[in-house]
Amino acid sequence: MSELRQDPTTYDWIIIAKERAKRPHEFNKKQETKETLPAHSENCPFCPGNEDMTPKAEAVYGTPEKWNIRVIPNKFAALSPTGNTKREERKLFRKSYGYGRHEVIIETPLHNQFIPFLDDEKVEELIKAYRDRYCALKKDPKIKTIIIFKNHGAGAGTSLEHPHTQIVASPIVPPYIRRKYNVTTQHFDNTGRCLYCDIEESELEENARIVANTEHFMVLHPFASHYPFETWIMPKAHKSSFGYISEDEQKDFAKVLKDVLMKLYVSLGNPDYNFIIHTAPVDDEHKPYYLWHMQIIPRLTKAAGFELGSGIYINTALPEETASFMRDFKL
Amino acid sequence: MSELRQDPTTYDWIIIAKERAKRPHEFNKKQETKETLPAHSENCPFCPGNEDMTPKAEAVYGTPEKWNIRVIPNKFAALSPTGNTKREERKLFRKSYGYGRHEVIIETPLHNQFIPFLDDEKVEELIKAYRDRYCALKKDPKIKTIIIFKNHGAGAGTSLEHPHTQIVASPIVPPYIRRKYNVTTQHFDNTGRCLYCDIEESELEENARIVANTEHFMVLHPFASHYPFETWIMPKAHKSSFGYISEDEQKDFAKVLKDVLMKLYVSLGNPDYNFIIHTAPVDDEHKPYYLWHMQIIPRLTKAAGFELGSGIYINTALPEETASFMRDFKL
Repeated sequence: MSELRQDPTTYDWIIIAKERAKRPHEFNKKQETKETLPAHSENCPFCPGNEDMTPKAEAVYGTPEKWNIRVIPNKFAALSPTGNTKREERKLFRKSYGYGRHEVIIETPLHNQFIPFLDDEKVEELIKAYRDRYCALKKDPKIKTIIIFKNHGAGAGTSLEHPHTQIVASPIVPPYIRRKYNVTTQHFDNTGRCLYCDIEESELEENARIVANTEHFMVLHPFASHYPFETWIMPKAHKSSFGYISEDEQKDFAKVLKDVLMKLYVSLGNPDYNFIIHTAPVDDEHKPYYLWHMQIIPRLTKAAGFELGSGIYINTALPEETASFMRDFKL
Repeated sequence: MSELRQDPTTYDWIIIAKERAKRPHEFNKKQETKETLPAHSENCPFCPGNEDMTPKAEAVYGTPEKWNIRVIPNKFAALSPTGNTKREERKLFRKSYGYGRHEVIIETPLHNQFIPFLDDEKVEELIKAYRDRYCALKKDPKIKTIIIFKNHGAGAGTSLEHPHTQIVASPIVPPYIRRKYNVTTQHFDNTGRCLYCDIEESELEENARIVANTEHFMVLHPFASHYPFETWIMPKAHKSSFGYISEDEQKDFAKVLKDVLMKLYVSLGNPDYNFIIHTAPVDDEHKPYYLWHMQIIPRLTKAAGFELGSGIYINTALPEETASFMRDFKL
């Protein structure tokens, strides 16, 4: 029979559907791999030589002539830095301008070079670019939340195949992020400890869902994974904000991220995925209640009416099995 | 520039991305239509003659030999009526048996007869079946939430094309539903009025997002629609629970639902969609704080990393435009 599990960081419940559960290798999608993509694509706005197809860069890594990473405003920005953040209310309907920032980080000049195939130093530079942009965007006092995320593959919501990450700087703290923050703050008020650090300790004790354990990071498939192969990369040093990641941590994080993504790529056949860097709201980043972390969500199943209507996710894989599969997977 | 709008029923924010907004007709997917499906499919477990491929029926409408609607336990149930609902806690990890019920309502004996193509009386009978099953399942005191939902099309998460609806009876009230319930309870405590009834009144005043307005129901595209063409069917009589729907309302609801789904089918080319009947938690259904309603979500866009990581949905259509498009659409 199935099992109900509660996510300790959100109080959400998920169902582990053992009856319909698949073995880890059955999730292999055998999708188009990078070998089928060209290294340069003439009409791609993110490829070198086409810089004038995009807005002017906010930052460039490498040299302007031979860049490694290019940060540009999103041409079709969800939020943009005009107007104000004043709420307008008309009876029950509250709205405001879509003030904010929406940037694209072009990860590499090569059209087909996914993160796991980049050199270590290139991925370190990418993590540094994430941090730099986080630190640049938070200077605007109107910005309350910064979300760094990646959509890989059409099933994960991307329309451009050239490897890129996005950053949205939002003038509001959305309820989803406020709730996560409140849960961990309450835990701290109750226990004097960080909830996420406690989770790491409990995971070490159970030793059933840990995929990797390095000097600075722990990789695990969470107890109440909402999705098959959902993966968290959690820092060991207690820092609420991704903006506080150290140089040593950046180096280690780059290696860990490459490894996780390469194992996903090879073992599941280049699945579509999203990753998100969760970090405390900007105004709360100096407080000790939260722990920044990265969540990686392979898009192997579809949310249906039950998930959309109840918020309960049905997971057709056991996190203990998928973690063991990934831990033992040899590249 | 884009606009941030807050959903008054959840406090979620959404972004109306005007820069990338499409005109309503541009969402037409021109998918496979019912004309390409057979009326009977030899290997379909839901087709007449194959009743022994499914568990024994819980209820049958019509006659056992010539049924109109068949209600069966889901063969691959997410929750099942064995075990207990006791929570087991191990440090931060809380779980319980997957106790509950998971039923399938086969809507018609015909493999290709979608709801909008059924006779009015057949859809009325279907709504009655929904209500009957709701009332039957709530008798179990361990059941706390009942979710009636439909997945239409592969993009909406269904694997079987024969028209069917599902019901999950859950032993927990998930946080998502509790939050919706708490928001409307707080509104009642503050104002002495139902939030949803107030929304209907405000929508009538603004008269910008209403698609249809019948004796018993209002059809609208909500102010803070999370998805393009998201549609709500809201009853005018203030009832917290779908279980209290009257016979007159069932008749009207059947007509309204057929009309909404037919317009979606024709104008958008048989899009994949989910619908969900939102209703108060079972133990709270006699209280005046909630209003049951149906939410219809065409699956025209994909949630990406930003949505999954922030809970903020980017909607690429204006609900005022899509509502006007549907209101004026001639069948």
